[in-house]
Amino acid sequence: MRTGVWLIGARGSVAVTSMIGALAIRAGLAAPTGCVLESPGLRDRVRPGIGDLVFGGHDITSVPLDKKAAELAEAGVVPLALTRALHDDLAAIEQDVRPLPTQSAQAGTADAIAADLERFRGRHGLERVVVINVSTTEPFPPPHPAHADLGALRAALVGPEPVLPPSSLAAYAALRAGCPYVDFTPSTGTRLPALDELAREAGLPYAGHDGKTGETLVKSVLAPMFAQRNLKVRTWSGINLLGGGDGANLAQPGANAAKAASKQRVLAETLGYAPQGETRIDYLQDLGDFKTAWDLVTFEGFLGTSMRMEFTWHGCDSALAAPLILDLARLTAAAHRAGRSGPITELAFFFKDPLGQVPHGLAEQWQALNALVAALSPPDES
Amino acid sequence: MRTGVWLIGARGSVAVTSMIGALAIRAGLAAPTGCVLESPGLRDRVRPGIGDLVFGGHDITSVPLDKKAAELAEAGVVPLALTRALHDDLAAIEQDVRPLPTQSAQAGTADAIAADLERFRGRHGLERVVVINVSTTEPFPPPHPAHADLGALRAALVGPEPVLPPSSLAAYAALRAGCPYVDFTPSTGTRLPALDELAREAGLPYAGHDGKTGETLVKSVLAPMFAQRNLKVRTWSGINLLGGGDGANLAQPGANAAKAASKQRVLAETLGYAPQGETRIDYLQDLGDFKTAWDLVTFEGFLGTSMRMEFTWHGCDSALAAPLILDLARLTAAAHRAGRSGPITELAFFFKDPLGQVPHGLAEQWQALNALVAALSPPDES
Amino acid sequence: MRTGVWLIGARGSVAVTSMIGALAIRAGLAAPTGCVLESPGLRDRVRPGIGDLVFGGHDITSVPLDKKAAELAEAGVVPLALTRALHDDLAAIEQDVRPLPTQSAQAGTADAIAADLERFRGRHGLERVVVINVSTTEPFPPPHPAHADLGALRAALVGPEPVLPPSSLAAYAALRAGCPYVDFTPSTGTRLPALDELAREAGLPYAGHDGKTGETLVKSVLAPMFAQRNLKVRTWSGINLLGGGDGANLAQPGANAAKAASKQRVLAETLGYAPQGETRIDYLQDLGDFKTAWDLVTFEGFLGTSMRMEFTWHGCDSALAAPLILDLARLTAAAHRAGRSGPITELAFFFKDPLGQVPHGLAEQWQALNALVAALSPPDES
Amino acid sequence: MRTGVWLIGARGSVAVTSMIGALAIRAGLAAPTGCVLESPGLRDRVRPGIGDLVFGGHDITSVPLDKKAAELAEAGVVPLALTRALHDDLAAIEQDVRPLPTQSAQAGTADAIAADLERFRGRHGLERVVVINVSTTEPFPPPHPAHADLGALRAALVGPEPVLPPSSLAAYAALRAGCPYVDFTPSTGTRLPALDELAREAGLPYAGHDGKTGETLVKSVLAPMFAQRNLKVRTWSGINLLGGGDGANLAQPGANAAKAASKQRVLAETLGYAPQGETRIDYLQDLGDFKTAWDLVTFEGFLGTSMRMEFTWHGCDSALAAPLILDLARLTAAAHRAGRSGPITELAFFFKDPLGQVPHGLAEQWQALNALVAALSPPDES
Repeated sequence: MRTGVWLIGARGSVAVTSMIGALAIRAGLAAPTGCVLESPGLRDRVRPGIGDLVFGGHDITSVPLDKKAAELAEAGVVPLALTRALHDDLAAIEQDVRPLPTQSAQAGTADAIAADLERFRGRHGLERVVVINVSTTEPFPPPHPAHADLGALRAALVGPEPVLPPSSLAAYAALRAGCPYVDFTPSTGTRLPALDELAREAGLPYAGHDGKTGETLVKSVLAPMFAQRNLKVRTWSGINLLGGGDGANLAQPGANAAKAASKQRVLAETLGYAPQGETRIDYLQDLGDFKTAWDLVTFEGFLGTSMRMEFTWHGCDSALAAPLILDLARLTAAAHRAGRSGPITELAFFFKDPLGQVPHGLAEQWQALNALVAALSPPDES
Repeated sequence: MRTGVWLIGARGSVAVTSMIGALAIRAGLAAPTGCVLESPGLRDRVRPGIGDLVFGGHDITSVPLDKKAAELAEAGVVPLALTRALHDDLAAIEQDVRPLPTQSAQAGTADAIAADLERFRGRHGLERVVVINVSTTEPFPPPHPAHADLGALRAALVGPEPVLPPSSLAAYAALRAGCPYVDFTPSTGTRLPALDELAREAGLPYAGHDGKTGETLVKSVLAPMFAQRNLKVRTWSGINLLGGGDGANLAQPGANAAKAASKQRVLAETLGYAPQGETRIDYLQDLGDFKTAWDLVTFEGFLGTSMRMEFTWHGCDSALAAPLILDLARLTAAAHRAGRSGPITELAFFFKDPLGQVPHGLAEQWQALNALVAALSPPDES
Repeated sequence: MRTGVWLIGARGSVAVTSMIGALAIRAGLAAPTGCVLESPGLRDRVRPGIGDLVFGGHDITSVPLDKKAAELAEAGVVPLALTRALHDDLAAIEQDVRPLPTQSAQAGTADAIAADLERFRGRHGLERVVVINVSTTEPFPPPHPAHADLGALRAALVGPEPVLPPSSLAAYAALRAGCPYVDFTPSTGTRLPALDELAREAGLPYAGHDGKTGETLVKSVLAPMFAQRNLKVRTWSGINLLGGGDGANLAQPGANAAKAASKQRVLAETLGYAPQGETRIDYLQDLGDFKTAWDLVTFEGFLGTSMRMEFTWHGCDSALAAPLILDLARLTAAAHRAGRSGPITELAFFFKDPLGQVPHGLAEQWQALNALVAALSPPDES
Repeated sequence: MRTGVWLIGARGSVAVTSMIGALAIRAGLAAPTGCVLESPGLRDRVRPGIGDLVFGGHDITSVPLDKKAAELAEAGVVPLALTRALHDDLAAIEQDVRPLPTQSAQAGTADAIAADLERFRGRHGLERVVVINVSTTEPFPPPHPAHADLGALRAALVGPEPVLPPSSLAAYAALRAGCPYVDFTPSTGTRLPALDELAREAGLPYAGHDGKTGETLVKSVLAPMFAQRNLKVRTWSGINLLGGGDGANLAQPGANAAKAASKQRVLAETLGYAPQGETRIDYLQDLGDFKTAWDLVTFEGFLGTSMRMEFTWHGCDSALAAPLILDLARLTAAAHRAGRSGPITELAFFFKDPLGQVPHGLAEQWQALNALVAALSPPDES
């Protein structure tokens, strides 16, 4: 039952926090707070467990994991004592974090990625490996005809021009290597017809997009509330102030647009109409790994009365994301074992911009998740 | 299908707003914003419709309905133009709003209330009358042995000492007159074993308690969100600043305690534990019919990281409550017609402190409501 | 002592609110709340008084003043009863609101504006006329060599190319007609060396820029507080959500940039350094004449402790600006009478982006204003 | 120039943070952020400097200073590295922190306190010792005739009944020992005619009350802003949520009332009238040394328009208070050296409830402080 978790962006805050957390929980040094599969109703239902996960990954940077861990402790994301206690375990993972390959043709890069995945699986005797993208958000890629057809894609990849954005190339390589793929970012990933075709052909499941960690999580419960009470939302505006590496990247217009679109989709989907307003994202280096989001909702009630609600969310994105990485690795591995292929739409609970025609209200997503867990639980354990 | 709505507190803000709203909707002068039974999925499912409702009620004050309507317009709760357009209709209702009877013995008072209900039913040829308490919050009553047994209660009511608080006496009289009873306040109402016995004996349904209009509504979606994400809520504190008659009453310690207890129950019920913190209620005359509530939630995530959320709700309680009065009158009448007796626990969606062992998360309450509507819908309409 | 107030943008919300207010105060129908010169320490110190003001102006639109007044009443900016009571007085002002002239050469336009000012003065026998720009914000104009020299400017204005932005052309015309000029917007106005030269040559005072009505007002007291306590402000970010005509204009990038720059200047000036962060301005039609601004300040205290403050300001810009228009008209007229020419830097209290090297903290600006009032008060009145 | 700082409550959070801070600044390990006398305009003006301060004090608890320092580091109030680097210096101070004496008669207790002060002065060869009360807030004491007269007080103190609350007994002892006294709490301290008499007789200055560290600091700039703009504040309500030892004490009704009264005084003093509303204080153990305060201000502008402002302050009270302790010790010592006796009213800048008829607006208090600094600066240094 030992299961690999291969993280694209393995030296980033989310990845290293999830590694430290899994190690700490396994060692009995921390409670699994924030892990959905460890909440009272779902505990012990899904295998692999947290203790079965083995970590590795790719990254373009070379900052050592223990240095990153120290930075996270300094920033208040993980306790300093934990990083010290887990120093040796983290050093062991270091062996399995490799530089992201780049070849002149994307087909070659994909081969190199797949080879790394094979090596990781073999080295640890893993039953399966789940690839999860936690690298920074990409801009929307330019359209390309090969995106629509697997044959055309294979042909185009051997050419000198890049065809796929990095997240999709990683997905292609993962699927080629027999690994399910999860995209925790708003990047393109498997969202191309050619890659869906590949996943189904290979009998592999995939999931995404864009982990729902803070402001959008709140929106996904407030918007249904307004809808159920038949209150008319007139405007919904927000601003996200965030630091850290993610913030610096989101200060780039392309990535910003991709992210902001992902954040607003929940409103139209749950309300049935799009209220006025936008979500702004601003980078403030000084905020570090913490994010402050403020939203203003103005709404109309009985006989046209104007009312309003504001909320401020002050959260640590890495600490909110990391336990979901553990949940997603476990659920995707279990789905793979159960023979699922194509998009796992029941994982909408975890994502801002979920795959498929699925409900965007958190309550219905929660029910879908519970149904999935029931379907994946071995009969003698449910 | 003409159905009476008899309001205890008929000259108050909530009552008069619901009358004006029903008249305006029937006349095509206003949309049914805020009426849950008029939202897309539930529209035209439950009879009686808003247009079938006929209003009357009791009150201890004698301020004319049109004067109260003018005050509500002045306060921005209802449009001035509407109060003018509906002047004659409101004047017609005035005929059916009577002073709350008081006799030396509570049995006599109950008889007089019941007689008023009979007269109202006969005068308008109503199929049935639903009694709804929208008067101000009472303190918790002192315990009395007659509360536990219907026979003992009947005997005690003829004595010179008051046995029941006003809300329960009204409930007793309503049930005696064959009328379902709904308590929109946190007062005792039917929550005494003797009155439950009477309702079942008479084959009458009842509902309550304490309309969920603002801050608690928000809590009922946020608390499940924290629970589902396995985030540990450490503190949840709030303050409600409100004016109006309701605010003045809630400034009294007894009523305040009853209300504050009602507001906190949702947390323990949905989280499974009670976080530190209280809800304060302060009266500020200057805020008029509007209420501002502020809540601070501090919570712990992965590896103990401290995070926080605040929200401010600025709403008009009368405008939030009035459409729910119309919903509750319709649903309770339909439940009565369908032969239901005892507590209608599927109406938890509407209440802060619902009857029965029911879920406190809004999403599950929404499902229960939808199931009730399905059960009550005539076959050819569902 | 009758003094003219000629408003550029006379049919806009700020202008019409200030007219209604002046009329209402004169008629004893309203208190002078928000008028700084009517606060306890300054009352009866500056002449002309509010009752001495006579209104006129230019506008590019032709919406009648009473129609605009009705819109303002509908939007909750002014009481409906007041607009009705003042209908005739407003109709009288209508005679003095003229279309903004445009000629093929800017020199011709300036002549036409000046002629309108002369006619207004003559028609009402006014002692003097103060011109105040309350039209919408312009983008920064392209630089032009004639901006730096009055002779060159006069020569350039007769050519076919526009040399001055509208606010500066109005200022030029006003000064030509012997009228002091006040810019309540962030537009260029008199902020060109050639116009300063003209004002000094003509012995005329001027004032500006950009009325300080809400969020920046708050900043101008909070920033000195942090400075005086030697707390280090690390980030200061904000978002302004506003509707109305002003909001629509500020949604244009050029105007937006001019406004946002004006709003941030106070921080660097009072703190002595520029913290990270920006002020965003978003247009939400549905908010009408009201504006909601949210600011987040993160700061560092003793031994590096991180702390934070947020504030939300929900104000009606027209209602905040209008009384300041009355104050500025009175103060500028009094300064003119006292022989002042050039920038009246003591009026910094009123502006986001004040003229001259002046303090940006509100407290010091308040003292400068009090000193000005003392200097302008007739000896027997002070 | 070596000056003693004797802290009543020397093992509490504020005291230990101020000790660590002074040691760290002297050692060049930390910047004097938050120290008002170290801000650009006041630096190097007042002697003694931070490096001249020598710490000692009384406490009723016996928790070692280094244990308290470790707790403060754990709570995020001071950096862990600093507590380690300063371990030996803190251990040295430990020698001068003694148990608060108690004798059967208060006169005896006062003698014992004075003896400890004398010993401290002698042991370190101090020029003078300033006594500062940073212990927890007391309830208002019952009135006693001896409070009004020094002779009567002296006589009463030898009796068996307690006459003075602890803060006043400490003040009495300090003045008896020739030490100026500062009360950083809302407790009674020197605010009794008999103690004022004693201070003047002894030629000693004193200062107080209740350090202005957070919400009230903000009020002291916002309230003058509303007054200067002639905006009518209708309601001002707030809630303070705080943990720590201070919070636990303030949960007691007596201390709570003393504190809340101190917090509201600024409004009536700066506005000239008392708006509706109260400040609530709630204890939430889980918030630790941090405090969150939320205030809602509703105000009326031109023509009666309703507007509103909210702010949230999230600060660490110990970190905000500690640098002010250093400032107050230095200023009070300098005032003593300059021959001042009685209340130092120019220190109102530091206090919620300042002594004397002084302005409550921060800006005027800032000017008074600057004037005091100028008066106290040696001629060759100013």
